[in-house]
Amino acid sequence: MIGASTRIGSIGRALFDKLLRADFNGPVYPIHPHAEFVGAVKAYRSILETPGPVDLAVIVVPRPQVLEAALACAQKSVKGLIVITAGFKEVGEEGAQQERQLVEITRTHGMRMIGPNCMGVICTDPAVRLDATFAGSYPMRGEVAFASQSGALGVTILDYAASLNLGVSMFASIGNKAEVSGNDLLEYWKDDDSVNVILMYLESFGNPQKFVQLAREVTQTKPIIVVKAGRSEGGARAVSSHTGAVAGSDEAFDALFAQCRVLRANSIEEMFDFAMGLANQPLPRGNRVAVITNAGGPAIMATDACENLGLSLAQLSDETQQRLRERLLPEASVRNPVDLLPAATADEFQFALQQTLRDAAVDAAIVIFVPPLATGVVEVTRAISAVAADFDKPVMGCLMGMRGIATGFAELQRHRIPAFPFPESAARSLAAMVRYAKWRQTPRTLPARFDVDQKRVRELLAQALAGGQQFLSDAAAFAVLEAYGIPAVSHRLCRDWSEVQTCAVALGFPVVLKISSATLLHKTEAQGVRLNLRNRDELASAYLDLETRLRALQIPISQTQFMLQKMISGGRETLIGIHAVPQFGSVVAFGLGGIYVEALKDVALRVVPLCREDAEMLVQSLRGQAILHGVRGEAPVAFEKLHEILLRVSQLAQDFPEIIEMDMNPFLLFHEAEKCMAVDVRMRIKSAEMVEHSFKQID
Amino acid sequence: MIGASTRIGSIGRALFDKLLRADFNGPVYPIHPHAEFVGAVKAYRSILETPGPVDLAVIVVPRPQVLEAALACAQKSVKGLIVITAGFKEVGEEGAQQERQLVEITRTHGMRMIGPNCMGVICTDPAVRLDATFAGSYPMRGEVAFASQSGALGVTILDYAASLNLGVSMFASIGNKAEVSGNDLLEYWKDDDSVNVILMYLESFGNPQKFVQLAREVTQTKPIIVVKAGRSEGGARAVSSHTGAVAGSDEAFDALFAQCRVLRANSIEEMFDFAMGLANQPLPRGNRVAVITNAGGPAIMATDACENLGLSLAQLSDETQQRLRERLLPEASVRNPVDLLPAATADEFQFALQQTLRDAAVDAAIVIFVPPLATGVVEVTRAISAVAADFDKPVMGCLMGMRGIATGFAELQRHRIPAFPFPESAARSLAAMVRYAKWRQTPRTLPARFDVDQKRVRELLAQALAGGQQFLSDAAAFAVLEAYGIPAVSHRLCRDWSEVQTCAVALGFPVVLKISSATLLHKTEAQGVRLNLRNRDELASAYLDLETRLRALQIPISQTQFMLQKMISGGRETLIGIHAVPQFGSVVAFGLGGIYVEALKDVALRVVPLCREDAEMLVQSLRGQAILHGVRGEAPVAFEKLHEILLRVSQLAQDFPEIIEMDMNPFLLFHEAEKCMAVDVRMRIKSAEMVEHSFKQID
Repeated sequence: MIGASTRIGSIGRALFDKLLRADFNGPVYPIHPHAEFVGAVKAYRSILETPGPVDLAVIVVPRPQVLEAALACAQKSVKGLIVITAGFKEVGEEGAQQERQLVEITRTHGMRMIGPNCMGVICTDPAVRLDATFAGSYPMRGEVAFASQSGALGVTILDYAASLNLGVSMFASIGNKAEVSGNDLLEYWKDDDSVNVILMYLESFGNPQKFVQLAREVTQTKPIIVVKAGRSEGGARAVSSHTGAVAGSDEAFDALFAQCRVLRANSIEEMFDFAMGLANQPLPRGNRVAVITNAGGPAIMATDACENLGLSLAQLSDETQQRLRERLLPEASVRNPVDLLPAATADEFQFALQQTLRDAAVDAAIVIFVPPLATGVVEVTRAISAVAADFDKPVMGCLMGMRGIATGFAELQRHRIPAFPFPESAARSLAAMVRYAKWRQTPRTLPARFDVDQKRVRELLAQALAGGQQFLSDAAAFAVLEAYGIPAVSHRLCRDWSEVQTCAVALGFPVVLKISSATLLHKTEAQGVRLNLRNRDELASAYLDLETRLRALQIPISQTQFMLQKMISGGRETLIGIHAVPQFGSVVAFGLGGIYVEALKDVALRVVPLCREDAEMLVQSLRGQAILHGVRGEAPVAFEKLHEILLRVSQLAQDFPEIIEMDMNPFLLFHEAEKCMAVDVRMRIKSAEMVEHSFKQID
Repeated sequence: MIGASTRIGSIGRALFDKLLRADFNGPVYPIHPHAEFVGAVKAYRSILETPGPVDLAVIVVPRPQVLEAALACAQKSVKGLIVITAGFKEVGEEGAQQERQLVEITRTHGMRMIGPNCMGVICTDPAVRLDATFAGSYPMRGEVAFASQSGALGVTILDYAASLNLGVSMFASIGNKAEVSGNDLLEYWKDDDSVNVILMYLESFGNPQKFVQLAREVTQTKPIIVVKAGRSEGGARAVSSHTGAVAGSDEAFDALFAQCRVLRANSIEEMFDFAMGLANQPLPRGNRVAVITNAGGPAIMATDACENLGLSLAQLSDETQQRLRERLLPEASVRNPVDLLPAATADEFQFALQQTLRDAAVDAAIVIFVPPLATGVVEVTRAISAVAADFDKPVMGCLMGMRGIATGFAELQRHRIPAFPFPESAARSLAAMVRYAKWRQTPRTLPARFDVDQKRVRELLAQALAGGQQFLSDAAAFAVLEAYGIPAVSHRLCRDWSEVQTCAVALGFPVVLKISSATLLHKTEAQGVRLNLRNRDELASAYLDLETRLRALQIPISQTQFMLQKMISGGRETLIGIHAVPQFGSVVAFGLGGIYVEALKDVALRVVPLCREDAEMLVQSLRGQAILHGVRGEAPVAFEKLHEILLRVSQLAQDFPEIIEMDMNPFLLFHEAEKCMAVDVRMRIKSAEMVEHSFKQID
């Protein structure tokens, strides 16, 4: 411990004391420039003077001495550093430079480092017993691993875990994440058998795509619960599109977490609600909950919360109801919620819980107890614990009011039954378990790869970049779609009236005529589109209109082209697009279109690359998906085709991160797969170097 | 106290002991059939034997003796009863009958009664000091009044209030509400100067319309916070309409609460979050919040929560930032959130809070403190309290982690500064205050009354009722609209082709031809409508089509009429309707129409009668209101006219509760007020007696 201090109350002393108090399973050497001993332990002037090998160094010296300490560690062949000292990247450019040098030292000498600017690390493994933090209680041994990007929240969370008797396996405050990142911990905990639930408090992602890949693997066996702060600041908003602002990056994070099956909690409190159930109880097989109570009001609140969170109240079998009826008071309610009335005894709680858990229609139980007088809490909680142990179904306790409740909480927690002061928390905990259990039951496929013409797209983008274009021409954009097998309307690019009339005959009337110009993006608003031209006369008149319009806009006709398209009627209007979200990567957007529907902003996102389930979930997550299934007798759209198109768009976005925005609006969907197609497309690109810079940060 | 018991541990004894322990300001007489004394106080065999006058009797005898006890009270000229005893309406018909007799006795003898089946009453007025409850701690004196329909939650809530040091003025567990109702308490607390915040836990409403009227008055001076349980069961759903299920009755409750400016909390926890701010701090003048912290993570979470709840982070003035910069550490952040860094001293907290509250751009402050070591909590909370007292702006405290926090909480609460363990709760509390403050600043108008032909509608409804019709004929429904000045499309009712062709000429082409039949409700789906008939030929062909259609449906043409309407093109499709919600009264529904938009179910409700602000809020509460303002360059609809129409519909619903369902779908809105009109209307009625029965329950 480099920076151990003799001064009681200092961080350097608090840390040292905690190392000893946790009974670290090995020698701890305090390093101090001149003291002979620290806390009655012999001190050394330098790590190089310590008698034996050193695995881990905790560094708390002032910032100017950190680099020197790290170099000494390297010389001593130390494997790991925990740098508590602050004053690096978080305070400005000078600190950032020091931080880069620190990372350089660790990389050169093959050391791993947590921090700097962190609150330390805890490992409760009995073979280790490391508490290298300067705050918070040493937690109970358990199976929860926790990484926090905020030191202060780390403290709070350790205290909170202790108050809930939630056992911890490892804790790491990762500070500036200069070397070891959240992703590194995830990778480590993936294979650590002593960890069964992973909690993370995050403010930023260094490498979201790596997170997705790792989290997808980890969540196959262990749940991950994340609090992602910074919703409101959220960095830059998703690039605003043809159709108005589509989504903030926080929605992209929601999509990302759902896709890699990570449970996102909205607050620290909710994170613990989730963790209490997942860490302590078996996963439910379904979402049918039995509520057993001795008070009507809280049972109604539990029911409200359950249904609001997608759980359903189990329908107890006649047999179960009959058995309950025989044993309980005549005024008791034997339908779910089972209300034992205020005077319920521990025996009645035990019997009722047993009978309901035995019922095949019940997947989980919430037991609510409000002590009517200051007695019975321990008896009732013991009865609950005894029954719960006999079943492979989750049981949640809810103890309300204060009298004698503390002992009840302790009793339940000793038996690993989550105990909550309000029914809403119990329901939240169960809902998270049901969600995770359902994910686990759903097999994941790999992102689909279609046979596409990647080379052609590379050429098209290179041409545009070479020409300094920010937006692809209409023709190039349609060509990109074609190369990736994304169907689009038949179209021809024409330079003048003579070409227009020839092409119209080739396409067949009715047709649409548009100005095709990179300076005229919002064609409808600029009145640069003429729809449903049914014959040569209407086409001629439309052509002359557009010429007049160009003149009014002072755009030389020689620099403009005309896009002629087949007029498509009917179908359901949707929009399908790609957006590159800052610090994130690309997302596929899908929403309902049509000028009125667009005002309702019913658009959802998924992070690239999408697998088949992602495409399905993306479509299902729209509020107005009924429109796709058909309203007032319409036939449903070709969902299979729609999923395929979304997957092809995902592949395009993955292959070409330089496409920072693509909008197919409208993309028309029909019942017949072969009729589904993009009617308009807009594509914005950025230079390859800019792409490199944005996405290849090191986590 | 009738039923005082000598047996320690019994409810009859617990209650008696609590009466004495609270030091009731007058004599308490225990009534016991044979004991000479109870808890060392002389007992009497009957209330009639007590030596002095009795104001209030608490009854806890077994149910079979309750009526007799009540009669004795009447004889003794007791004014008030609190009946704790259970076993009445809640256990079945026999109990319900006993309850009716009990109410009969109280009414005959001019007594008021709380209960039966309740947990009792508390009044902390020093001149009274009544604790007639058998559970919960005697609360601190304060200005919160609380009514609970659940005894168990009453216990919990009293305990919770005590743990938060939230002072209580009165508490009443209202049980079966047989005589005194929640509305009665509201009326009482309205004029009680010792009450400044009213909390209610409700499971049902006896008389929602009276609640609305009372709550509208009360909330002009005192906030009301309600937890309404039973969302999911929610009684019957709103009658499903022409356009599919519109809304459950829980949404009707949301509308009701918003309309009478009642804050609805989703849980007991949230109710206390709201109450802590409103009961203890001044109302904010706006929604701009300053966050002062010594930890970054929690400040980000506070920011997220604020913005998510409609609060905004204040933009501190340059002067404020400058002053902070001069005094704080160079690494501190002087922009909002003001981050004082972990080592912040009490002085720094005091200075930063002072400077930010002094800034005119700040309406409220949240102060977050995470003790980095186990010191400083009391100093910091004292500093916060000292500054808060100097300003007329609300200050919320958030103390995180556990070390030393209890003393910090106590310190803040002693100075009436709400203290929370998580930043989200502080933000929720502030958001409720901002919402209530804004309501208070908005003047309320009386529901508008238009000059309408009420007599005509009465005749039309009477005719339909006489004919045993559930649905009004098209002609009658249009006539109702006309009588209330609600504009509708020009139309004619015709019996045969000869009338159809004459009327078409009178209306002018293009026209719409519909089958007008009570048995054919969903005309579009039954293909009973022909749109946009441009001339006599098209009309003739449509007429023959409909005749064929009628034959196919086996409806005799002689019993059917044809509705001929002017064809209206353009406009924005909306739906405007009336729905009678069970146990509730009528609501006005307004939503966006058109077959695709309807699938998104963007419909909102307001309870009848609406005032002008309600109509405006109703329109503003649609997700897709941008459609009404005009998308892609469209002009806005005639909002003034729309509000007027909604108010006229409200008046119709209020005047005729027998209209249990009315749907104008579509109601077309245009930029020009005179073009706005209903194009189709459907109206369902129920008999006058049924209406009486449903809505005139006694609360």
